Amino acid sequence: MSLEKVIRSIPDFPEPGIIFRDITTVLQDPDALALAVDIIADKVEGADFDLVVGPESRGFIFGVPVAYKLKKGFIPVRKKGKLPYLTVQRTYNLEYGQAIIEMHRDAIKPGQKVVVIDDLLATGGTCKALVELVEELGGVIASMVFLIELEALKGRNLLKGYDIHSIIKY
Amino acid sequence: MSLEKVIRSIPDFPEPGIIFRDITTVLQDPDALALAVDIIADKVEGADFDLVVGPESRGFIFGVPVAYKLKKGFIPVRKKGKLPYLTVQRTYNLEYGQAIIEMHRDAIKPGQKVVVIDDLLATGGTCKALVELVEELGGVIASMVFLIELEALKGRNLLKGYDIHSIIKY
Repeated sequence: MSLEKVIRSIPDFPEPGIIFRDITTVLQDPDALALAVDIIADKVEGADFDLVVGPESRGFIFGVPVAYKLKKGFIPVRKKGKLPYLTVQRTYNLEYGQAIIEMHRDAIKPGQKVVVIDDLLATGGTCKALVELVEELGGVIASMVFLIELEALKGRNLLKGYDIHSIIKY
Repeated sequence: MSLEKVIRSIPDFPEPGIIFRDITTVLQDPDALALAVDIIADKVEGADFDLVVGPESRGFIFGVPVAYKLKKGFIPVRKKGKLPYLTVQRTYNLEYGQAIIEMHRDAIKPGQKVVVIDDLLATGGTCKALVELVEELGGVIASMVFLIELEALKGRNLLKGYDIHSIIKY
């Protein structure tokens, strides 16, 4: 099975000129979902790490089953105001305006090794903010794995020095 | 291991008088995460169904690993404007105001059997709207499984006639 063929490309979403890569067609197909989770997990299976971290909300979709499969914990990074306990925060720039993400202060112990998982590497802005939160808590980024990478947006430039994997490149 | 002991109770979140049941402490513990996924999956393992449906964003957290474990597809239900393809919608009441959720029109084929998974059954409002979307597309609700049920909020009253399971009751 080719995951590329299962991903649905939708022109002009969320705005004219953008081709949106829709993973819901992967999720709804049991074989494609299993393959996507297994391929992402393969990239870090055997690596030395303690936790998977994923950003709300599509980062939960692949991050949790990979954590489950590899017997790791999962740390959700959420938009401001959603996490109930003490948090650390980062503000980052969007195309229009800014966003704030949070992580619980006790989510990561100093020295714990973390794998970041998300469905998409685009500009890298969310991921960069997430990495800063992990490092503020003393965590160490072991690797990052993305199902899809939009190479034209050069997200890797913002994340230089980290071990980055992507499965499907556009 | 007792999941009850791993869930963190946070008083006065999101507002005074509410005790928030925080599952992030379950997620970050590899054994607790695996146990929660396995217990939820056990409730429907062997049942006749095709798809897991879960609402954004905490419904993704347990819904996807259960779908992965049981070799089913996963259908995300999202807040208005997030899904890129043609959708069906439901508006439902919140404590203050209203919310709109959406599902892709081609997410479920008529006659497909669906298990609903979410972390929490509270008033049941989101779940009721989700069930209406599934049924609008011709899907059949086989079961619903919630990690936590807040019994005082009587969510089951809104979901009469469905097969409902919850793991931990408060």
